[in-house]
Order: sequence, then C-alpha cells, then structure tokens
Amino acid sequence: MKRVNKSLMNIEQKLKSSAELIQDTLLNHIHQLINTPEPLKKAMSYSLSAGGKRIRPFLVLEVAKAVSGDEAIIDKALYAACAIEYIHTYSLIHDDLPAMDNDDYRRGKLTNHKVFGEALAILAGDALLTQAFGLLSQMAKQNLIEPKIAIELIDDLVHFAGAQGMVGGQVADIEAEQGDTTFEQLQFIQQHKTSDLIICSVLAGGRIAEANETQLKHLYTFARNIGLAFQIQDDILDVIGDEVKLGKATNSDVNNEKVTYPYFIGLEESKQLVIKLTDEAKSAIEFAQLKDASTLIALADYLVHREY
Amino acid sequence: MKRVNKSLMNIEQKLKSSAELIQDTLLNHIHQLINTPEPLKKAMSYSLSAGGKRIRPFLVLEVAKAVSGDEAIIDKALYAACAIEYIHTYSLIHDDLPAMDNDDYRRGKLTNHKVFGEALAILAGDALLTQAFGLLSQMAKQNLIEPKIAIELIDDLVHFAGAQGMVGGQVADIEAEQGDTTFEQLQFIQQHKTSDLIICSVLAGGRIAEANETQLKHLYTFARNIGLAFQIQDDILDVIGDEVKLGKATNSDVNNEKVTYPYFIGLEESKQLVIKLTDEAKSAIEFAQLKDASTLIALADYLVHREY
Repeated sequence: MKRVNKSLMNIEQKLKSSAELIQDTLLNHIHQLINTPEPLKKAMSYSLSAGGKRIRPFLVLEVAKAVSGDEAIIDKALYAACAIEYIHTYSLIHDDLPAMDNDDYRRGKLTNHKVFGEALAILAGDALLTQAFGLLSQMAKQNLIEPKIAIELIDDLVHFAGAQGMVGGQVADIEAEQGDTTFEQLQFIQQHKTSDLIICSVLAGGRIAEANETQLKHLYTFARNIGLAFQIQDDILDVIGDEVKLGKATNSDVNNEKVTYPYFIGLEESKQLVIKLTDEAKSAIEFAQLKDASTLIALADYLVHREY
Repeated sequence: MKRVNKSLMNIEQKLKSSAELIQDTLLNHIHQLINTPEPLKKAMSYSLSAGGKRIRPFLVLEVAKAVSGDEAIIDKALYAACAIEYIHTYSLIHDDLPAMDNDDYRRGKLTNHKVFGEALAILAGDALLTQAFGLLSQMAKQNLIEPKIAIELIDDLVHFAGAQGMVGGQVADIEAEQGDTTFEQLQFIQQHKTSDLIICSVLAGGRIAEANETQLKHLYTFARNIGLAFQIQDDILDVIGDEVKLGKATNSDVNNEKVTYPYFIGLEESKQLVIKLTDEAKSAIEFAQLKDASTLIALADYLVHREY
C-alpha cells in the first residue's frame, strides 16, 4: 500500500509538470497564428488556459514514451497532444453554451460565452476544432512523422471526435435528457462522450511511436477500460460528493433522477466495476509489451484512487 | 455576344448537373455513417440538401478536370468537393444561429436551428466540420491519392477555413458590426469569409490533379479574383435588388449603413472592378496552361453576368 501511495504521488507530480508543458505549448500555437483577429485568439486562449488535469494530452505523451522508450519523442507527440486538448476544449466551450448545458462557470472561471459572448464562443470552438487538424497536418509538413501516419492520426481524430464519436455521444446525451434513459443509452453516451477521446489519445501516442498492430490492439483495450473507469469514478465521486455536501443517503441520485452507473447498478457494484476495469486495463498494458509501462500502470491506479 | 450567351447557358447546365451529383454524394456519405444517432444524421442531411449553386465543389471538380484533362478524375475529386461543401454548410448553420445572424430562413427553407433546435444545430455544424477532414483522410486511406497530397489538402483546408481564414473572417465581421467599418476591414472580411474557401476549392482541384507549383500559383490568382468578383457582384445585386424591391435610389444602401463595395466606391466603379477582376482571373487561367480551360473561363464569365 505504501508503494501504491508513492507511485500515486509520483504520477500526480508527473501530471502536474506535463500539464504545465502542455499549457505553454497550447498557448504558443495560438500566439503563432498570424493574420488572425485578436478577439478570436483571446477567446481561444482563455479556454485553453482554464487548466484541468490534462489527462488526454498526458496519455498521448506517455504512451509514445512507453512504446518507444525514448523521452525525445515528446517533441513530436506534443503536437498531437495539443490537437486532442484543442478538441476537448472546443467541446467544453460548445457544451457550456446556453442552448446546451447553459453553464456560467467551469473550474471556477466564467465560461467562454460569459466572457466573450455567445457568437465569439461558438467561433472560438469552431476555430479550435479546425486548428486541431492543422496541428496534425503540420506534423507531416514539418517531417516529424510520415504523411501516412499523420493520415492515421487525422482519421482517428475524425472517428473518435466526430459524428461517430464524441459529437454523436453529445447528441445522444441531449436526446436522452428529453426522456427516460436506458442503461444501454447511458453506456453509449459515456462511451462516446468520454471514452472515445481517451482512446484517440492513447492510439495517437502509439501511432507516433510506430507501435505494431498487436500493441495498438492492446492499447485500445487499455484506453477503453480506463476511459470507462474514469467516467464511473466520476459518477461515484458525484454521489459521494452529494452525500458530503447534502448529507443525503447514498442513493440520493435516484431521487434526483441523475442517470449514472451508481443509479443503475448501485454504488458498491460501481466501485467493484472500476477496480475490475482498471485491472483489465493494466493486463492489456502487460500484453502490449511496451518498453516502459510503469507510468501507464501508475496512471490507471491513480484514476481509480483519485478523490476529485 | 451570342457566343457568350451560349457558353453561359452551357455553364448553367453544367452547374446544375454537377449540383445534382454533389448533392447525391453529400447525402450518401452521411447515410453511410454507422453508429451515429439518427437525429444528428437528419440535421446534417437537412442542411446539406438545402441546395444552392454549389460553386465551391464545382470548382474542385472542374479544376481537377482542367488540369488533368481527364473526366475520370471526378471519382477522386468528389471527396474533396464534398469536404468543402461540408465546411460551407457548417458555416451557414452556425452563422444562422440566434447568437450570430439569427436567421429563420435560408433559401426559402427554415434554418437548421428552427427545425432541430439550437443544440442540435450547433452539434450538426461541429459534426460536418469534423467529417470534412474525414473525407480528405479517406482519400489517402482508400489509395485515391498519395498521403502527402492528402496532407496538403488538409493543411489548406485548415488554413482557409480556420482561424486564419473563414472563421477569422466571420469574427472580423461580428466585430465590425459593433462599430464603424473601414474599407480595409471590409476587404479583410470579404477575403476571409468568402474568397478563402473558393481559393481552397481551386487549390484542392489542382492538387488532386497534381498541378505543378507554377500552375498552383496561377490557379491561386484565378481563385482570388473570382472570389472577390463573386462577392462584389453579390453586393451589386443586393443594391439593384433593393432598388427593384424598395423603389429606392441606387445609393439607398448608404442610408441603410450596409457596408459593401458599392457603399465605399460606388455602384459604377464596383461594376468596373468586377469586370477587371474577371479579366485578371481569365488571364491567370491562360498563364496556367491547363489541358482544357474552357469551363473555368466560362465560369468566370458566368459569375460576372449572373443576375442572382
């Protein structure tokens, strides 16, 4: 247990230092956009600076390192890491809009449209989505990776972030709120809203490091499992958070009609499922036979033990 | 003059039959999206079916044909033609939103958000934008073009449709409405809101047909000129339309505070400028020494003679 705690501390340190590198790089790419209206650059930068754990870009970098065994691969992988964070950020900006979740705050900061107005928030989201693909095409144009690999990264990003991925999950979420949601619908929504971009991050890291097909298959399984575990852990923390905050019984979410894993299968079984998914994720990483899997294993443990 | 009329009739026929092919292909690509919520596919298809002259995809196809001298190149070029129409369509959906232009109708049909609601309209736009890149990556994945060329198409699309292109133009337009607009600002807005995607279409056709650098340079000049001529002609038709509709004097737009080319340089000089730009566009096409430039020349003439 002591060893787990130590590796959890390590992974938090690594996440923190990676998040700083990511943030600097994200903003630097926006800064370098010439011939672009300043208000647009400001609106894009505002949401990119909003912080968060930056787990998706961290996965891109750490998978690339784990597969290649080479720290220097970060120079290439940073482009893809930023591309995925652009996508994640645009999705948050659009999700927060009055027509969607109508949120005024995110992570304690005013949401994009509260600061810049709805029109600019929509356009900042559109621009981030578009520029994400520009970061990937530039990887090939600058000879960091083969054009063929850049095409795979782009095709994956379309698949996991587009109509068949994240956007599809968001649509399913909106539709679900209008009626009763089945467990199958919840699974569809969480798979696409959350897991898909995590899968995309892991595959991107693998592809940049030229992982073979077998490794990519196991990396996919790893990503799918930690993505789902991450989401269920969020659901669990919501319930526990509500308990602490509201002093209600564990199944208060049933009354709130919140549609979550605990709602369908109960809190205890949800906790067990997170542990099972994490174990399967770690097995997949073993099967993938990477050069150095320690950080990915530690991350899987971190995601299940985290308390926020 | 009779010859011009005949070639104008020809080009209208060609535009019409190309528009039908484009529409079928656009919808077919959406139909083929598996594992995608039906409401999303419906919202995407609705706006893709809204018609229009489809000048951008026409340019992709016709430039590819003009450079290669090969009808069969259409099979490849159709993917890129559809990608650009996806981008054009997403931009219209987002532009029509209440937070932007707040339009209820476009081409006589209810706008996307009036039919599907704002949330789904935003997401349908996001999905079209994302899938546009998927059509381009699929060109390489399906071995229709070299990955290196697909990367150029993707990089161009980011440049001309993103923060430095169309989205940047849209932001400048929004900002301009909030204050007085200078002629320089108008030029920036029209360059990026309208011309950029036309340039992107022409370059895409050229790249797919493997035009050389000199040809691409002249094609760029052609596109930039017809893009601007197209926009100024729109401005002129707005003024003339207003005259007929409202029975006002030609410079009624001055009182309406509409910011257009006629507003800044007058109606007559605007008409002269359209002719000059069209002539320069046709010269550029001559310089490019294409295998068969007749349709592109006819299109340039059509754009200046059109009355709607």
